[in-house]
Parts: sequence; C-alpha cells; structure tokens
Amino acid sequence: MRIAIDAMGGDFAPKAIVEGAVMAAKEWQDIEIILVGDKVQIEAFMPVKPANITIHHTDDVIEAEDEPVKAVRRKKNASMVVAGRLVKEKQADAMISAGNSGALMATGLLIVGRIAGIERPAFAPMIPTIQGTGHGVLCLDLGANMDASAENLLQYAIMGSVYRKTVDGIANPRVGLLNVGVETIKGNELVRAAFPLLSEAPINFIGNVEALDVLNGKCDILVCDGFVGNIMLKSLEGAISVIFAELRTEMTSSFLAKMAGLILKPGLRRLKRKADSSEYGGAGMLGVDGLVIKCHGASNATAVRSSVRLARHALKNNLVQAISTEISNGK
Amino acid sequence: MRIAIDAMGGDFAPKAIVEGAVMAAKEWQDIEIILVGDKVQIEAFMPVKPANITIHHTDDVIEAEDEPVKAVRRKKNASMVVAGRLVKEKQADAMISAGNSGALMATGLLIVGRIAGIERPAFAPMIPTIQGTGHGVLCLDLGANMDASAENLLQYAIMGSVYRKTVDGIANPRVGLLNVGVETIKGNELVRAAFPLLSEAPINFIGNVEALDVLNGKCDILVCDGFVGNIMLKSLEGAISVIFAELRTEMTSSFLAKMAGLILKPGLRRLKRKADSSEYGGAGMLGVDGLVIKCHGASNATAVRSSVRLARHALKNNLVQAISTEISNGK
Repeated sequence: MRIAIDAMGGDFAPKAIVEGAVMAAKEWQDIEIILVGDKVQIEAFMPVKPANITIHHTDDVIEAEDEPVKAVRRKKNASMVVAGRLVKEKQADAMISAGNSGALMATGLLIVGRIAGIERPAFAPMIPTIQGTGHGVLCLDLGANMDASAENLLQYAIMGSVYRKTVDGIANPRVGLLNVGVETIKGNELVRAAFPLLSEAPINFIGNVEALDVLNGKCDILVCDGFVGNIMLKSLEGAISVIFAELRTEMTSSFLAKMAGLILKPGLRRLKRKADSSEYGGAGMLGVDGLVIKCHGASNATAVRSSVRLARHALKNNLVQAISTEISNGK
Repeated sequence: MRIAIDAMGGDFAPKAIVEGAVMAAKEWQDIEIILVGDKVQIEAFMPVKPANITIHHTDDVIEAEDEPVKAVRRKKNASMVVAGRLVKEKQADAMISAGNSGALMATGLLIVGRIAGIERPAFAPMIPTIQGTGHGVLCLDLGANMDASAENLLQYAIMGSVYRKTVDGIANPRVGLLNVGVETIKGNELVRAAFPLLSEAPINFIGNVEALDVLNGKCDILVCDGFVGNIMLKSLEGAISVIFAELRTEMTSSFLAKMAGLILKPGLRRLKRKADSSEYGGAGMLGVDGLVIKCHGASNATAVRSSVRLARHALKNNLVQAISTEISNGK
C-alpha cells in the first residue's frame, strides 16, 4: 500500500505532516509513504528517514488563499497536484492532504477523476457521537458541493453505506436524511424530493433525522447537502466550544469552584475527547476514482498519523472498488 | 392594547395559557387580554378573573396533527382562527398562540393577511447569546418557509432591522448572513445571490457570519432560510442539551464528583439559563399585517407571560406599522 502525502499543505506543514508520517511509517510496516514536497524542508524534520518513506521532490505549493480550480490547473508541480497525479498514474494507492480544501476537491475531480456514474464526489468526515453507540456518524456531503440535487443525495447515501460496511464492518448501516423533523412531509424541496429516492434505494434508510439525533448516534450515515451539513457541524462544534469556555470561566470563579474544577477535570477531559472529531483522522472524498483523504487544515502530527491509519484501513478493504461496483450495479 | 390569546393551543393548554395570561394581566394594567377558547375549561383555571381579562368563547380547536392550511380553512371557529380574526377585524391589536405552528403560519397568511409588498412572512425568534453583548440575536426565518429566494432573505433582513430598532432600541443593528465562511464568495447559490442584495440595502449589513458567531453575539440579526435556520437552532440546542446531560452523569460518578457538582450547581444553572431561549417569550411572525406571536408548543405559564410582555412592548413601539413603512419606502 503506497500512500502519497502532500507534505506542504496545512497550517503546520511541513513539520506536523512529516512528523505524523514518520509516526505512521514506524507503526505500520506494510505501508510505503511517499512524502511529496520540498526535499530540504522535509528532511529538516526527519533526521532519520524510516525505510518505508520516500521523498518525491517538488518545489511548488498551493496556498490557502489560491483560487482552487485555477491553482490546480496552473500549478502542475504543486505538492498536492503531484500527489493526485501519483494516484492517477497508479504510482500511489492513496493520497492525503491537509491543504486548501477547495483545491483538494479540484485535484480529486480534475487530476484523479470521478468514478464512472458519480455526478459529484462528497467529503465524508466522521462526527463523534457523544451518547449512543460511540462509533460515530459518517456525514456527507460536508462541504465538497454547496448545492446538491436529490440524485446527488441518493449517491451520497449509497457511497456512505458502502463506506460503513467495508471500512467499519457495520453489516446493515442505518442511513438518515438530515431534516427539521422526522415526519415524511417535513423539509425543503430538496429533502422532500430525496426522501422517496432514498426509500426505494437498496440501503437501510431509516427516514428523516434531526441534528440532535446525530450526537445521539441514531444513524450510521447522515445525508445532507454540503451547505446544510457545514452549518450543522459548525453549530454543533460552536455550541460545544462555547459551553466548555463558559465552564472554564465558571470553574475559576472562586476557590471552591477551582477545587470542584480540579475534581471534575478528568471527566471533562474525557467528555471533550468524545466530542473531538480529530481522532477520526480526516474525511474521505468519496466518489473519486482513487483514495483521496482530506485532513483538517489545523492537523497536528497525531491527526496526520490517524489519517494514514484511515487510508491504510480503507485500502485494505478496497473502499474505492466497492463504491465503484455498487454504483455500476445501480445502473 | 388588546391582546387575544389562543387559550386552547399548546402542550399544556388551557392550564398554562390561562395561568400565564392571569400573571400578565395582573402585572400590566394597561393591557386587555381576550382569552379565546372554551369558557368552562378556561374558567376552571381562573377562579378569580382579573378585570382586564375577558373570555371569547368558542369550542373548536386546531389539533397538533391537523393539516395546517386545511384546518385553518375549515375550522372557522377554532380558537386560533378566531384570535386571528379578532386581529383582522381590529377587535384585538395582537394575537398569541402556542398551538400548531403550521396552522399559525396559515392563520397569519390567510386570516390576518400580509403587509403589502411582503412576499413571505417569517418567524423571528431571539436566540440567546452566551458570550458577547448578551442581548440576543434575532434569527429569521426560523421555519415559516422552508425554501426562500434571495429577495425573501432581503425582506427578512429589513424586517429584522426594523424589529431591533423599534422593539429593542438598538440604533444601528448589525445584520449577518448565515454562511459556511466569512469570505464573500462562500456559500450556496441562495446566499451568494442574497449577498449583493443585502450589501446594497439600507441596513447595517456586516457580511457573512458563521453559526459559532451567533452564540458570540457577533450580529443583532441573523438572516437565513427557514430550513437552514431550523437545522442551526436544533444543532445548537442539541449540542448544549447533550453536553449538560453528560455533565450531570459526570457529576454523579463518585462521591467527590457529587460534591463538585453541588459547588458548581449555581454556576451551571446560570449558564443553562443563559442558553435558554424561553425567557424571550416567543417569536414574532414578521410581515403579517397585525402582531402575531408564536409561543413554543411546550410553553409554561412563565413563557406565556413573557410572550405577553413581548406583545405589549412591540405594540407600544408600533412594530407592524414600522415594518410596513420601511417596506413601502423601499418600493
């Protein structure tokens, strides 16, 4: 399994990326990591190179403020684009990047290419469930496409189901449609058009689910358009971070409150970890004809290591082929 | 100021509604309350009738499971419909209901009627800010219309601005457009079409805001379509309720944790109250040619009292006339 990593993309690149890659290379001997980027900069953070890491030198980089499609078209030697090309040319089985999300979307579409029959690939991160099963909810699309058609939502549902079956071993994963209420007639035009399509699809569709149900783990896959999904995710994350900030203030308000804070610290840390999605290691870009994994821009070395674990696991279970087979069966 | 209250609508009607009305009638002698509903049932919860309460008897009711438009058209003597008609016929200045939201929307549209020039009225609840100014964010639309056009969003922005100026006395209220990022180019087709309209409108448009900024009080008015707004609100509320539930579990996990919980209890209760929107007393249905206020279905007597306070305050400040003037000025 050869995994190309964009060493230059992300807020803490190349340091965090290289360090995470080294952690992963040491942990899993059955993978080969190709670090794509500036050789001198990469080597600065890798005094001893593990045998299963190689460096693929390139000195161009896509910046956070670059216009995505233009950048991918023009910067043919940017580290992200080169990593995508390695996948396209079968010199790598997967690519990982923490760089410009829009550019990664463009790299997936223009360099790696879509699976035949897929109209729009989707970003599919795992959202942690705080109550319930604890195995997370795969949400898609979270931001690859701002607008979606009912048919797009159907493909998201099918790809998500394949993911949970093959990558996570869930036999009959439950698909929920994000909506403002559980009744069939609820929702905007888009979700009302998608509901019958999902009902008839060969998936375990459990109907509409509300945002609260996500944290409760009521479904294994949550289907929504990229705009709504992003608003939901940021609302959940925002509320949690504000509450924790207020708790911190509360727990320093008096001597007794400080004592109470000390007692509760391990429990709060446990709760915070439950609510933290970085453990899951990135979001797959599903529907692309090759494994493409997007890491959060602020990824640290641990997050990069987690994304390699995810890539390795998805490759072992032939995720991309499984999606391709399921989509062509549906034709 | 005559305020008609649908005594039969809501999960705890008529008890909570009548008790809340009595609290309000005693508190504000400058209002007259007309309780619309079953006389016998209403009197059962009002052993002594304050002088400024009258009962308008009717024995039909719109149920939670009724199909909204059909129910409003057919049940001409339902308490909600009668309250709407009192407003239409200038026998009341405002109406309040905690009943079926869809039916209340239909009552506003079909019985009370729209302000000339308004395409779609919007529900505009106040969301509490946990950090920041602490005077709440007026969000619209929250669920009156699932789909909206860019022009609808513009009208929401204008109506929301008038509300914050007249009802809350904010001189130059800041309008934010709910989006997935602050950059101008962000968003789905709808918000990208709305952005230039809001930029050119005679309002204090501060640009795109993210869900997190709502809790931080970054704007005074948040504009969004009813579907997205509802997803955001339920995500915020859901995350907060899940975190509090987990905290409760954490604080009963050991003797020491229980002690810590006791110490922190007042602070947590304060925080919970900050995050609780019921204090604000209902959502105005803006754009209707008369004051219509929607209470949460689960409203208790205190919430009903708060909604009367809101109605009284909005009437004193001529909210409906101010919206009407602003909309006709824009023509």
